[in-house]
Amino acid sequence: MQTRTDQATAFAGHAFATPALLAQALTHRSAGAPHNERLEFLGDAVLGMIVAEALYARWPKADEGSLTRARAELVRESALAAVARRLEIGPRLVLGPGEMKSGGHRRDSILSDALEAIIGAIYLDAGFEACRRVVLPWFEAAVSAVPASKVGKDAKTRLQEWLQGRQKPLPQYVLQQESGEEHARIFVVRCVLSDPPLAGEGEGGSRRAAEQVAAEAVLGQLPGA
Amino acid sequence: MQTRTDQATAFAGHAFATPALLAQALTHRSAGAPHNERLEFLGDAVLGMIVAEALYARWPKADEGSLTRARAELVRESALAAVARRLEIGPRLVLGPGEMKSGGHRRDSILSDALEAIIGAIYLDAGFEACRRVVLPWFEAAVSAVPASKVGKDAKTRLQEWLQGRQKPLPQYVLQQESGEEHARIFVVRCVLSDPPLAGEGEGGSRRAAEQVAAEAVLGQLPGA
Repeated sequence: MQTRTDQATAFAGHAFATPALLAQALTHRSAGAPHNERLEFLGDAVLGMIVAEALYARWPKADEGSLTRARAELVRESALAAVARRLEIGPRLVLGPGEMKSGGHRRDSILSDALEAIIGAIYLDAGFEACRRVVLPWFEAAVSAVPASKVGKDAKTRLQEWLQGRQKPLPQYVLQQESGEEHARIFVVRCVLSDPPLAGEGEGGSRRAAEQVAAEAVLGQLPGA
Repeated sequence: MQTRTDQATAFAGHAFATPALLAQALTHRSAGAPHNERLEFLGDAVLGMIVAEALYARWPKADEGSLTRARAELVRESALAAVARRLEIGPRLVLGPGEMKSGGHRRDSILSDALEAIIGAIYLDAGFEACRRVVLPWFEAAVSAVPASKVGKDAKTRLQEWLQGRQKPLPQYVLQQESGEEHARIFVVRCVLSDPPLAGEGEGGSRRAAEQVAAEAVLGQLPGA
């Protein structure tokens, strides 16, 4: 049986050495100071790093752009609110009477802010390693479930799939320039789409590398790619 | 005397257990794979957290908005490039011949990306605590030098100063509503400016708290406040 004291001093298996941190993390600004906004600032950064590291390790072939997009997806407000609901944060929130009446403990923004604040509180209470041990399991399934199409494929492949998915013609890669000494050639390639009519250039130490950069430049101009 | 080996395996006092990480962090994508973009993604998150924690600890009265703005200032590209120059990263960069010719080792974007990549590399090489010990000193002066006007003042004070600095009339705080039981009053206050003509509302458990929230709502609408 969980006692009242456990409830007030523990969260998701972490027993707080300083229970006041947990109480603060659960207090919305509408209930007065000390509230959870500063802890939310800290927890947002801690969570960003925990998720960045997990994605980096889990998807060794993903490029920077894919990792950045995947992270934004995992820590967006609605995703954090879903985690907060699984952890049953809502009923433990301390809200001002106005927020209470209007159902603030069910609102995505309040739940996701509180989740970040709790992460900040655990970090201050027990340090980075302990915080990661508690927090990472909340996101592990989502980190592994990131579609390979978003993080596992190179730019040329992603561009090809984007076009094929919309029954559009494939890109053309045109070598624009080849220069430099024998041992240090520079290739400039232009990637051209007919529909939508777009183009992008890339430079690299090989033709293939330059094509990837050019494809990435075009992907950056496509909506939802 | 620093030997060639030290140069290739150490950075800012950190001796790499895995020197390949340092070599990768110093390699721009124009020089081919493995380059530093994935490390940059990781390092950006690590740095964000180190700076967030330092600001949180150094400015105990700063609200979340001030902390967020101060952090953005400290880790903006030009600030990171300045740190990279102090640490003399430029001459150690490995660039493709095109970037080399066009002076890429002096460019802010390339320098700041490489700095973040080095932070990611130190983190992978030695863990969070060791990474923070190396990295924090690069930013400590800037963390302490954040103007108190940005992090030490409450919303009403900041709003007042913004207006006074532009010779504009002070805001009016108008109580809109007072409700709730004796022990749980709710106050709604409207903060009204005549020039620029703006208003914002705030709710709180006291009139003063509601005024702060209303002032914050107005500050959010002012450019550069």
